[in-house]
Amino acid sequence: MSNIPKTEGLVAAPFTPMLADGSLNLAPIPQYAQFLVQNGIKGAFIGGSTGEGVSLSFPEKLELLQAWGQVDAPDLTKIMLVGGTSLEESKLLAQEAGQAGFQAVAVLAPFYFKPANVELLARFCIQIGEAAPELGLYFYHIPALTGANLSMIDFLACIDGRLPNFYGIKYTHNDLMDFRQCVLFGNQKYDILWGWDEIYLAAMAMGARGAVGSTFNYAAPLYYDLMAAFQAGDLEKARQLQDKSIAIVRILGKYGGIATGKAFMRAVGLDCGEFRLPIANMPAEQYARFLDDLNAIDFHTYASQMPIPAIASEL
Amino acid sequence: MSNIPKTEGLVAAPFTPMLADGSLNLAPIPQYAQFLVQNGIKGAFIGGSTGEGVSLSFPEKLELLQAWGQVDAPDLTKIMLVGGTSLEESKLLAQEAGQAGFQAVAVLAPFYFKPANVELLARFCIQIGEAAPELGLYFYHIPALTGANLSMIDFLACIDGRLPNFYGIKYTHNDLMDFRQCVLFGNQKYDILWGWDEIYLAAMAMGARGAVGSTFNYAAPLYYDLMAAFQAGDLEKARQLQDKSIAIVRILGKYGGIATGKAFMRAVGLDCGEFRLPIANMPAEQYARFLDDLNAIDFHTYASQMPIPAIASEL
Amino acid sequence: MSNIPKTEGLVAAPFTPMLADGSLNLAPIPQYAQFLVQNGIKGAFIGGSTGEGVSLSFPEKLELLQAWGQVDAPDLTKIMLVGGTSLEESKLLAQEAGQAGFQAVAVLAPFYFKPANVELLARFCIQIGEAAPELGLYFYHIPALTGANLSMIDFLACIDGRLPNFYGIKYTHNDLMDFRQCVLFGNQKYDILWGWDEIYLAAMAMGARGAVGSTFNYAAPLYYDLMAAFQAGDLEKARQLQDKSIAIVRILGKYGGIATGKAFMRAVGLDCGEFRLPIANMPAEQYARFLDDLNAIDFHTYASQMPIPAIASEL
Amino acid sequence: MSNIPKTEGLVAAPFTPMLADGSLNLAPIPQYAQFLVQNGIKGAFIGGSTGEGVSLSFPEKLELLQAWGQVDAPDLTKIMLVGGTSLEESKLLAQEAGQAGFQAVAVLAPFYFKPANVELLARFCIQIGEAAPELGLYFYHIPALTGANLSMIDFLACIDGRLPNFYGIKYTHNDLMDFRQCVLFGNQKYDILWGWDEIYLAAMAMGARGAVGSTFNYAAPLYYDLMAAFQAGDLEKARQLQDKSIAIVRILGKYGGIATGKAFMRAVGLDCGEFRLPIANMPAEQYARFLDDLNAIDFHTYASQMPIPAIASEL
Repeated sequence: MSNIPKTEGLVAAPFTPMLADGSLNLAPIPQYAQFLVQNGIKGAFIGGSTGEGVSLSFPEKLELLQAWGQVDAPDLTKIMLVGGTSLEESKLLAQEAGQAGFQAVAVLAPFYFKPANVELLARFCIQIGEAAPELGLYFYHIPALTGANLSMIDFLACIDGRLPNFYGIKYTHNDLMDFRQCVLFGNQKYDILWGWDEIYLAAMAMGARGAVGSTFNYAAPLYYDLMAAFQAGDLEKARQLQDKSIAIVRILGKYGGIATGKAFMRAVGLDCGEFRLPIANMPAEQYARFLDDLNAIDFHTYASQMPIPAIASEL
Repeated sequence: MSNIPKTEGLVAAPFTPMLADGSLNLAPIPQYAQFLVQNGIKGAFIGGSTGEGVSLSFPEKLELLQAWGQVDAPDLTKIMLVGGTSLEESKLLAQEAGQAGFQAVAVLAPFYFKPANVELLARFCIQIGEAAPELGLYFYHIPALTGANLSMIDFLACIDGRLPNFYGIKYTHNDLMDFRQCVLFGNQKYDILWGWDEIYLAAMAMGARGAVGSTFNYAAPLYYDLMAAFQAGDLEKARQLQDKSIAIVRILGKYGGIATGKAFMRAVGLDCGEFRLPIANMPAEQYARFLDDLNAIDFHTYASQMPIPAIASEL
Repeated sequence: MSNIPKTEGLVAAPFTPMLADGSLNLAPIPQYAQFLVQNGIKGAFIGGSTGEGVSLSFPEKLELLQAWGQVDAPDLTKIMLVGGTSLEESKLLAQEAGQAGFQAVAVLAPFYFKPANVELLARFCIQIGEAAPELGLYFYHIPALTGANLSMIDFLACIDGRLPNFYGIKYTHNDLMDFRQCVLFGNQKYDILWGWDEIYLAAMAMGARGAVGSTFNYAAPLYYDLMAAFQAGDLEKARQLQDKSIAIVRILGKYGGIATGKAFMRAVGLDCGEFRLPIANMPAEQYARFLDDLNAIDFHTYASQMPIPAIASEL
Repeated sequence: MSNIPKTEGLVAAPFTPMLADGSLNLAPIPQYAQFLVQNGIKGAFIGGSTGEGVSLSFPEKLELLQAWGQVDAPDLTKIMLVGGTSLEESKLLAQEAGQAGFQAVAVLAPFYFKPANVELLARFCIQIGEAAPELGLYFYHIPALTGANLSMIDFLACIDGRLPNFYGIKYTHNDLMDFRQCVLFGNQKYDILWGWDEIYLAAMAMGARGAVGSTFNYAAPLYYDLMAAFQAGDLEKARQLQDKSIAIVRILGKYGGIATGKAFMRAVGLDCGEFRLPIANMPAEQYARFLDDLNAIDFHTYASQMPIPAIASEL
């Protein structure tokens, strides 16, 4: 294997806390980081889909970056999503991330003008990576949102050897044949992180060792149990745990999708406010019913735990 | 569990043999069946995507149905794909399949006018199933070709209890969360068959016990080894075998896709001719290079074996 | 210009009459044809989307073909949609159409396996055309239903000169740049018929001289007024008439889409029954409200007229 | 009609000039504006698709906004595209545009998280409009790039009466039935601008009176001739002129698409550099062949003219 760091375990994609008026709420970020670390989370993927990076203004993105940069958590790998449709802005953010103490940046395929082929995507990533050569760079593959449905095994073959700090892919797509080939590429050279929590077991069977996800924010113990059962060869237990993860994702869908994640955070004691437009939030009057649904799936038995109850009540 | 039969193992989706002029070649079908059985195949899914059912005329479909119906192979479950865009024609074919000795029929979502919801799809399936009540009925879910991308867990909930001879789903789609829920539905009531050979390992991790596929025609030993390794808990070996399956599927893609399957059949000794329009076949001059590619992946070490060489040379 | 016949005016795509039990109702077809002719319709496009060709069994398709073939209406050009996903079946139907007195056949792009390029589509059409060389052949371009979204100007360039009886295209797509180029191709060599009734004015501006549509079944006078206003240079009147057509199409959408067309037929006095599955029909209790909506848009002032009221009541 | 200003004529979507190193080149903007005005252009749509707004960093967007804001051209309506996926950033840019002397802003549907319905889109637009109430606001409908394919007539009905400075829609989509209804909405209350240059004639037939486009940058005389022919009732001439527009757009496609627009600008004497990644530019060695193609379609006879040759050579 290469000397590229390989993530073993879970990277959370934190929500971006907002105040009631919809403005950024940076105060809870140190506690948020502590909460993640104490639940075993290895990394934080800042400003991604879950983190509403695309819904922040550029100045807000810089503020968020600074706030996470100041987090003192040596065991937490910090990854900043820097792009984005604009190569220039992505480079600016990558440089800021380097100065602020991040270990890596992540890059989406540009999603207005889509790259027509893997070579154009590789050039886009290379220029960003060269702007912050001391940081690792991950490509964040999520074609359902970007519309850029390129083969990742072809992309790896294209970028390989052209960007020394290229680390790998956050793979949020359901093409497990392509994923498997990426895992194997170059004698397992790259860090290929799985990005669909609800079928993590399938991806582990195909070789995944690490994952980035949103439900890891509030249900990390569940997924570590899942990984342990899988590694112990107890497939039946692993399936049952994956089924609990599926039950969580069904509740996300039932209450409208991604925004429901912040309701889960509130349920574990860390109020992150609401999602911004154009995303619709769960109507307030549904929250009680949502909590009932959490009880019905025994959510509390595998939810992430607030380290010190006193802190949670302050937030 | 229900008393619906559960498939343990591999169902092949046979190619439909054609003569050089493109007409049906029914003569080899008995040997084809024998070949499948002797390679451990449990069932034959006739007239599916691999079998070019949609490319046959109605009279040809009846001929093909009769030919497979006459196959004397008690250990081979025979399933006929009967639809199709026309409910009436599907019912006619289902009745013929019942008289011809099939055990089950399969139904595609109508793919010109697509069903707008699972209720319309359920009614479509129920009417066909009621036309041949002595046969099982499978729904064949392949939204990449039909354009009917409905939730299968919602479909099961909709059809459940309304068609006694409804057996389950041939699931050829990459939504493993939906698949997993279908496997579990009603205390594992239905026979949910996996349909993407190249990621069968992922599906087994999510609970698949049987599969329908095209590469099982010519590489059954590989997949039985894969299943055995998986069941023995030897995940690393299972991955290596799945990687060989992926290598096969990459060669399919390299030479143009589905039609390359008939080249694989020729390579194992059963000439099925070519695919019909609108599908493009591999140019004849590429066949030698294709064989080189098979050697490069050691295809012969896990290919299906002709039972008696003499028969193969006759075909 | 070439000696290929050029359609000036309207071709209707007749509904296929059904009895209350959903079976074919061929008895009204002679009156249906008379009704079309007396409302100025120049041609009948049988078994298309409106005619539910894909929802008929092969034997039913032959019956429908025979029934329309026997229609004695010298001024009505009869076109049979023969395909379809199966080249063989399309050829059989084309030959039957030739013997039954049709003037032309039409061919869809195969819509399960889609043609990967215009050459494969051209070969598909050519073989059908050669099976019935005495008939004209139209390609029916409707990518929203077939999923075969190929450039028609490239297709014309590809098939040109290879099939003497190739007549042109029924163009049911919104790419008016492509359409315009097809109209001009080869010094206006081919008969390029427009297929979206609700924006026929736009297509006439781009050079359309004829059209095939479903609303021409029951609102032919409206469209002839529209054509007359356009040809007289009275654009404002043409727009107002097109707006009435849009109002009709909005009502189609309001009551569920294509099946509402048969409710329009009932309203003009020709009961064609219902659409078959997988299409949903308007619930019976909505029909009164539907008639109110027709009154609200003054539908009766431009609806097609039954030639002899006595006949209508018989149907 | 309402007192919302109605655009009669052409609005150009200027390219954003770049230097050879890919950085912004703001110096030519005053001449660019003069060039547009002297060719009859009524407005400038800044930072749109043609202007690569999504490819600029936020600081660059502000620079571009200032540069166009300082343009002294009373007859040129200045419209700034301010969004964008981030509501907050769009509001900031709208406020800047108001201070900088723009007359209106334009808003894209957010294109990473897409609005699930017209209500969410309306709220997004309303908040931006309220941030700059002295400016008009246009919604820029281009679902092929945003993936937000909502009905515009439903959107108008939803936003109507809720934002006093809502002006209308830049309609870059091929649904001419929806477009026509938007034109008519509220007694022609809103300014509905057409956005597909190559079929402007079709849109005029359906009621378009103004348009925003990229080819108006370099071929304005052609389109004014087209409009004049259409208004004079000379449809045959109008078609011939539209055919010349189609010939231009075919050349755009032949050389790779949107980036070829900057080659057209170079050909008329205003070097705007190249497009940024992820868009591919025409290889330099093809430029001579491109110029030959321009000659073959007599491009120079209807191209926009540089006001003073001396200026062009300076640029």
